[in-house]
Amino acid sequence: MQDQTLDFETSVFDKEYITLGDRREAIVRGGRHLFERLPQAFDGVRQIGVIGWGPQGSAQAQNLRDSLGNTVRVTVGLREGSSSMQEARAAGFCEQDGTLGEMYEVIAASDMVLLLIADSALATLYEQVFAALRPGTTLGLSHGFLLGHLSQIGAGFPTDVDVIAVCPKGMGASVRALYVQGADVNGAGINASFAVHQDRTGHATDRALGWSVALGAPYTFQTTLHSEYLSDLSGERAVLLAGVHGIVESLYRRYRDQGLSEHDAFRHSAESVTGPISSLISKSGLDGLYRSLDADGREVFADAYSAAYPVGLELTHEIYDEVRSGNEISGVVMAGRRLARFPMGKIDDATMWQVGQKVRADRVPSEIPLDPFTAGVFCGVMMAQVDTLIEFGHPYSEIANESVIEAVDSLNPYMHARGVAYMVDNCSTTARLGARKWAPRFDYLLTQQAYPAIDSKEPVDRTSFDAFEGHVLHDVLRVCAELRPSVDIYVG
Amino acid sequence: MQDQTLDFETSVFDKEYITLGDRREAIVRGGRHLFERLPQAFDGVRQIGVIGWGPQGSAQAQNLRDSLGNTVRVTVGLREGSSSMQEARAAGFCEQDGTLGEMYEVIAASDMVLLLIADSALATLYEQVFAALRPGTTLGLSHGFLLGHLSQIGAGFPTDVDVIAVCPKGMGASVRALYVQGADVNGAGINASFAVHQDRTGHATDRALGWSVALGAPYTFQTTLHSEYLSDLSGERAVLLAGVHGIVESLYRRYRDQGLSEHDAFRHSAESVTGPISSLISKSGLDGLYRSLDADGREVFADAYSAAYPVGLELTHEIYDEVRSGNEISGVVMAGRRLARFPMGKIDDATMWQVGQKVRADRVPSEIPLDPFTAGVFCGVMMAQVDTLIEFGHPYSEIANESVIEAVDSLNPYMHARGVAYMVDNCSTTARLGARKWAPRFDYLLTQQAYPAIDSKEPVDRTSFDAFEGHVLHDVLRVCAELRPSVDIYVG
Repeated sequence: MQDQTLDFETSVFDKEYITLGDRREAIVRGGRHLFERLPQAFDGVRQIGVIGWGPQGSAQAQNLRDSLGNTVRVTVGLREGSSSMQEARAAGFCEQDGTLGEMYEVIAASDMVLLLIADSALATLYEQVFAALRPGTTLGLSHGFLLGHLSQIGAGFPTDVDVIAVCPKGMGASVRALYVQGADVNGAGINASFAVHQDRTGHATDRALGWSVALGAPYTFQTTLHSEYLSDLSGERAVLLAGVHGIVESLYRRYRDQGLSEHDAFRHSAESVTGPISSLISKSGLDGLYRSLDADGREVFADAYSAAYPVGLELTHEIYDEVRSGNEISGVVMAGRRLARFPMGKIDDATMWQVGQKVRADRVPSEIPLDPFTAGVFCGVMMAQVDTLIEFGHPYSEIANESVIEAVDSLNPYMHARGVAYMVDNCSTTARLGARKWAPRFDYLLTQQAYPAIDSKEPVDRTSFDAFEGHVLHDVLRVCAELRPSVDIYVG
Repeated sequence: MQDQTLDFETSVFDKEYITLGDRREAIVRGGRHLFERLPQAFDGVRQIGVIGWGPQGSAQAQNLRDSLGNTVRVTVGLREGSSSMQEARAAGFCEQDGTLGEMYEVIAASDMVLLLIADSALATLYEQVFAALRPGTTLGLSHGFLLGHLSQIGAGFPTDVDVIAVCPKGMGASVRALYVQGADVNGAGINASFAVHQDRTGHATDRALGWSVALGAPYTFQTTLHSEYLSDLSGERAVLLAGVHGIVESLYRRYRDQGLSEHDAFRHSAESVTGPISSLISKSGLDGLYRSLDADGREVFADAYSAAYPVGLELTHEIYDEVRSGNEISGVVMAGRRLARFPMGKIDDATMWQVGQKVRADRVPSEIPLDPFTAGVFCGVMMAQVDTLIEFGHPYSEIANESVIEAVDSLNPYMHARGVAYMVDNCSTTARLGARKWAPRFDYLLTQQAYPAIDSKEPVDRTSFDAFEGHVLHDVLRVCAELRPSVDIYVG
């Protein structure tokens, strides 16, 4: 990653510039009133083939179909004999009207192909997929994993197609749930980044923007495919998924060691993060969360933040190195090969998460504690990820979405409703593998380094907290928050 | 790794064949009575340069000097201004008599160069080192990391030198401590593997065997440089270091959750593994440990073993994949670059290890419990590593040493005396990084999968235990045990 000046031209949508701290970024604001422009954005596209029925595939196929009405056909393509065929039929796609079919046939028959199968399947099948694309097709991805894999093995995309990406900054379930809510609250949705990697048709940018608007993205910001996979893989391996998991495990154990009951330890760790802490960050940012604490709470927050931040910085740098070197991607590909023999087990049977089920069942939402220590640890790790991504030159919109907004508006609310296991099991295999790999690292380093620093007789070194109040992130989050109506996600 | 038939010829030492299960391996038995043959083994070598003063460098330089007397000069080479210069002088090496010098000068002046600097330094400096080697030099390594790194970056060794390896299957401190004990008990020492990767001089095999005998290895077995680094890196990332760390962390927490005091939870987890369990395995193998339990204990052992084995198998396969793909090696190289900014912290400040200090201070050795649950978990993970290495075609001697003997005769006794942090901090940077990365993985998977399986109402699936009693490992360990006098390592 290097700093780069991104910009784009669109003749269909209204590009505007937003000011984020010291930078300007070009974006497109979404909304249902723009659906009437979709036929123009998809000019020349008679059929969009959505390949795969995972969390993203199922959500995107339905959103696209609902947004496009009968202007462009949305067809789902699945492996012959896929067990998802029945689910796709239940969602209204069917062979009879040509909206459901065998994946390679759908690929060959589509003008735009959204390739939303699992990453490990991408790594295995990409040659067959490429062979099935007609020249002039627009190939769409929802994150940059395939670019990372191709780069690593010295391969590339076919040169006679467009390659674009629209990457919703939330899990598939949120992409669908917020879209449905958007029928009542225009603008509810999951922000997305877009990238144009190859533009053979000259329509790549508008097709990408149209795709994003049709998914219901409140605002769409620009990135590159390379920048996207670096931040996306790093983000889910850090605070979005693995980080939050490791943080709450370490805090639960700490609170147990301090004498709290299982029930209370869970409430002060996991419940506090996924409930009031996430909700406050969503509404008023990390600084708003901090200011909502009383004087004593701010002191506790500042110490916890200061001790957790260095752990977060060290681990997010390690994660970033592992992602950009290709190690993380090849690890996912190898893990995919091992899965048949060693299926991923559930984490939900462990004691802490069994406790969590009971706590959720007994929950009184107004009584969930806003624990300032928990908040400090969570925000310290979150800010460390932000600073790592800034250091590596990512756009502010991408950083804010990959580090904060996706967490507090998409993933953590699901975690709050269903528990960590549900959240993990509804993410992509790549994300699940990353969570299993990195969560314990956050747990161990916090336990070995951050907490002993707080418990020692010496005052905590608050160097990292000095930069908190004036941090550019707060301004970035305020601008991002203005771009969508405040909608609490509904978890059915 | 593939199965391969290894054998070698020596005109200096006495090769013998040992029968390990269904296989025959050629080995050389060691002992101080062979030191008189060393001048012949090192024929043509006037000076051995030992480069580096880490745990292996310092131990090997002293053992070699003491074994060779004044027949071959042993010279230590260090970076200009290295802080280790003073330590080397304290051990009797000095500039005045030519036994201590700047590393590149020592390399250029030596007929045999033992390159024992840290792996990350190897990755940075190898080109300069290679350039300093005279044609016909014998380049010695103590593990195969450099081969792994060179393979990954598409480089190779110089073609005009010998490349050999002698790899003691124990930490540097044990290599020295057991050698010193060997003055009284001939044959005390750390087993070593040897490999001849390039033989330009025609003397490579005898120089390698001489090096190993001079280090005090009770027996020396053959491997390849490739097989060595796969098993060595995998072993330390699994049961030798990371595995045992993660196992005792998970057990300590389990016993605390079951109501044991901090003191007792530590005694039944870490103390039990590093004390009686390791000692019994060293003396009578895994089956001997099992048979030493009473009927109830055997039932507990069998359940714990059966639940832990699948976790061990899954993780050792993942580790092996990461090592052979080069990911683990490039991860170490990248971590080396990050260390200046993010130094490795200590693990010793965490609550459990603070408890451990008190437990060790109060220790009554005869009262350390032999906990059958702890024993079952430890042996289950250990046997899983053995089976993974068998599956990938490693020699039995290498497997037994990398999975069992190095643990119970070298690493665990140090852990028992000084704690996990001491052990970790006296291993190579590569091993330390591996321990930090993989220990939490063992902890989490045991906690998420193995212990819930034991605690559920369903009987534990004992499939993996069915293979325990008839396992070839027991016979292999019995043969290995006969090759050295039974010496309990002295930890000063």
